[in-house]
Amino acid sequence: MSDEKKKRGTEELPLLQKVVSLCKRRGFVFQSSEIYGGLKSAYDYGPLGAELKRNVMQEWWRSMVHEREDVVGLDASIIMSPKVWEASGHVSGFSDPLVDCKLCKARFRADKAPQVPKGSEVTYRREGKTLKAVADRGYVCPECGGVELSEERAFNLMFKTNLGPIESPDSTVYLRPETAQAMFVNFLNVQQTYRLKVPFGIAQQGKSFRNEITVEHFIFRSCEFEQMEMEFFCEPEESDKWLEYWKNERFEWYVRLGAKRENLRLRAHEKDELAHYARGCYDVEYLYPWGWDELEGIANRTDYDLRKHQEASGKKLTYFDPNRPNPETGKPGVHFLPYVIEPAAGATRATLMFLLDAYHEEPPSEARAEGRVVLRLHPRLAPIKVAVLPLVKKDEWLQGKSREIVKEFWKSSVNAFYDEKDAIGRRYARQDEAGTPFCITIDGETRENDTVTIRTRDDMRQERIKVEEAVDVVLRKMRE
Amino acid sequence: MSDEKKKRGTEELPLLQKVVSLCKRRGFVFQSSEIYGGLKSAYDYGPLGAELKRNVMQEWWRSMVHEREDVVGLDASIIMSPKVWEASGHVSGFSDPLVDCKLCKARFRADKAPQVPKGSEVTYRREGKTLKAVADRGYVCPECGGVELSEERAFNLMFKTNLGPIESPDSTVYLRPETAQAMFVNFLNVQQTYRLKVPFGIAQQGKSFRNEITVEHFIFRSCEFEQMEMEFFCEPEESDKWLEYWKNERFEWYVRLGAKRENLRLRAHEKDELAHYARGCYDVEYLYPWGWDELEGIANRTDYDLRKHQEASGKKLTYFDPNRPNPETGKPGVHFLPYVIEPAAGATRATLMFLLDAYHEEPPSEARAEGRVVLRLHPRLAPIKVAVLPLVKKDEWLQGKSREIVKEFWKSSVNAFYDEKDAIGRRYARQDEAGTPFCITIDGETRENDTVTIRTRDDMRQERIKVEEAVDVVLRKMRE
Repeated sequence: MSDEKKKRGTEELPLLQKVVSLCKRRGFVFQSSEIYGGLKSAYDYGPLGAELKRNVMQEWWRSMVHEREDVVGLDASIIMSPKVWEASGHVSGFSDPLVDCKLCKARFRADKAPQVPKGSEVTYRREGKTLKAVADRGYVCPECGGVELSEERAFNLMFKTNLGPIESPDSTVYLRPETAQAMFVNFLNVQQTYRLKVPFGIAQQGKSFRNEITVEHFIFRSCEFEQMEMEFFCEPEESDKWLEYWKNERFEWYVRLGAKRENLRLRAHEKDELAHYARGCYDVEYLYPWGWDELEGIANRTDYDLRKHQEASGKKLTYFDPNRPNPETGKPGVHFLPYVIEPAAGATRATLMFLLDAYHEEPPSEARAEGRVVLRLHPRLAPIKVAVLPLVKKDEWLQGKSREIVKEFWKSSVNAFYDEKDAIGRRYARQDEAGTPFCITIDGETRENDTVTIRTRDDMRQERIKVEEAVDVVLRKMRE
Repeated sequence: MSDEKKKRGTEELPLLQKVVSLCKRRGFVFQSSEIYGGLKSAYDYGPLGAELKRNVMQEWWRSMVHEREDVVGLDASIIMSPKVWEASGHVSGFSDPLVDCKLCKARFRADKAPQVPKGSEVTYRREGKTLKAVADRGYVCPECGGVELSEERAFNLMFKTNLGPIESPDSTVYLRPETAQAMFVNFLNVQQTYRLKVPFGIAQQGKSFRNEITVEHFIFRSCEFEQMEMEFFCEPEESDKWLEYWKNERFEWYVRLGAKRENLRLRAHEKDELAHYARGCYDVEYLYPWGWDELEGIANRTDYDLRKHQEASGKKLTYFDPNRPNPETGKPGVHFLPYVIEPAAGATRATLMFLLDAYHEEPPSEARAEGRVVLRLHPRLAPIKVAVLPLVKKDEWLQGKSREIVKEFWKSSVNAFYDEKDAIGRRYARQDEAGTPFCITIDGETRENDTVTIRTRDDMRQERIKVEEAVDVVLRKMRE
């Protein structure tokens, strides 16, 4: 374990618990079906969490699709033809090695179990007694430490269901385990209808499903999760260059949205870590409370996927470039399968990362008698952009004026929130916890000179501005 | 069949085919997994369709969540605890009556089959011969007209799958057939963490799944679809008033986004048409090419759902109102189950409706030698808001200036599109078909006096404006 890993992994371990507790208390994330005792690793996003996740996904779409000439969007169905998953290798190969402990009946993944040297002697406790045995498998039961284990079985991670009324192999379909395959299957449809020239990308966001045995770390790894993937099709000779480009671009995206640079790193995959079809791969890793772990992967998938789908479907998936020279004739004009660079991010995971990174506890200070919890979310990610607060509750003029200002924000598509409950200090504290970058307070002076107080979340500075400037001040911050 | 039904249902029937063809040609909607021969009623949204559907959903969220003080958002998991669906009645009751024809092996829904008087004599053809038989069931096979039918079996519409590695009844879970139940199950979590007072609503958007036997009319009815639902919790005595309010509000939402008022109507459900728990229900109906059909339902669901979940979970789901008098003691303060008004819209269906309603073919005119196809989408719904076009392709200054203008739009979160391919007339035509409300052309005069031509999609009027006004002109239109 590295020093850095230790730092957040042990000393600051409570950070995760604090964030989970804030999420529950303030309505970011609830356990799914909680009144029925919950469902394994399924989570529901409450009012603030739904907005935060939407904003993360919207920012990704904005930077990956809207603000680029070379990437377009796609929104494919979750249930695709099963032939897609046969061709992609998911039906035969997308599995975990599953083992049962014959003693304690635990079921676990062989590759996630505690590893021991093969043939070494291990001790474990059973019914109050300490037993010794030889670990001939190289790992032991994670629950009881025992070595009496079933054979390893390949357990496919795809959720299976049936389309139509008959449950039979013929009607078996799968919930997609990734969004990426839809971009390969639709490659030519999109390229031709949108008249795109290589290099170009197809981007998609949406739910994917993996029947994970080991779920962990709150929303970090769950069976139902939300992805943000882009397949960038380019000339094979250019693919190394584009991998470089995209790994940097994706790293900087997190930084631009406020993640601390020192909590992020790029890690190149070792040769033996690479998927068999990949020519290169980087992970964007984040220093989670449990140590460095994956946030996003950026891989050079070569032409593996297009080639597989071309073989399986019998449909030509080559791209025609009228300018590129044909290697056989030397003349311009050649059909070829592009290589693919894939930046694959998790929206659920990114949401957790931004929450962890934004969470701050501030002790009491001279300026503030009480400490506070503040989410320093980037204004573009903040669920609420501005809270509009009449200083006194029972003043109809203040209420009316406040609601007028709220409507001005709405006209500019800014999510403004009206709150008149409790003393102003408590209302500020609630907005700090929700990550709201600005509070605007309407008071007696507003009536006299049409000014309001605007309070900035991070430094708690307050200044008076003209009412008519309010929308612009907030919009300007969001555009920075 | 009413006169109106006939009008669009028969004479204008090709409208659906025209829209389907445009969708395919321009990349709005593709058949899913097309290279593998497709998958029954599954569709993928291409670059333009993905943007259109996003905009429809974003406008709903804006008007239902952001721009209201009394509604908050939720984003729950698709796979919920199976106990949710037992309590809601979906496990036992959410089924279609399924029948097999013993002659031609067709499988069909009894309630969708051709109806005939019970006991009447019907004729049908079989192996070249005309046969006569008595229809003792009240319906005949929709394929061959035969009456030798299997028993009706209840076929549950929920997709079943298994959570975890063992396929057994214990691990059975369902893909949600509606988003609504998550709002009931999370009712108290949301109310308490967000400190909400009745009346208030919880809104959600997302995929739902129904294993429909009969799929029809392109994306109108498919097994995987996207919903936009809101549950509005109110005092029982106020529920009739709120049903009135929401049916009108939802009707007007479509009109505000450009749907033609004459193609929409509100239809109250007859008493015998109402779900057993509903106190009242309206459908917003649209005049599709096949006649009037459902677009959205607005129902008074009473306290049925909260009561069912309270019973099944054993958890109190009552809301405490400190001011409402307790009927037993007469003193203020009472716990009660709110009634629920549910406006349940389909995002997929709304997307189809807006496409159908916006589709126009214009014949050649004096102003325009060629006819055109134009999608008159509301600027807020249009996939691309503005196309920026250098008049000549090979002029670096024009290209550079055009891209500068594109970037100005992006800064204001306006989805601008750069296009330099083909003659300007063809580029306009492409944008008309895509529903782009504005085209901005950069030409030689731009270099001289910093003006550009802005062309309006609907009237094709062109006027010169200052470059620096361009963003504001477009933003103003979008805010209207």
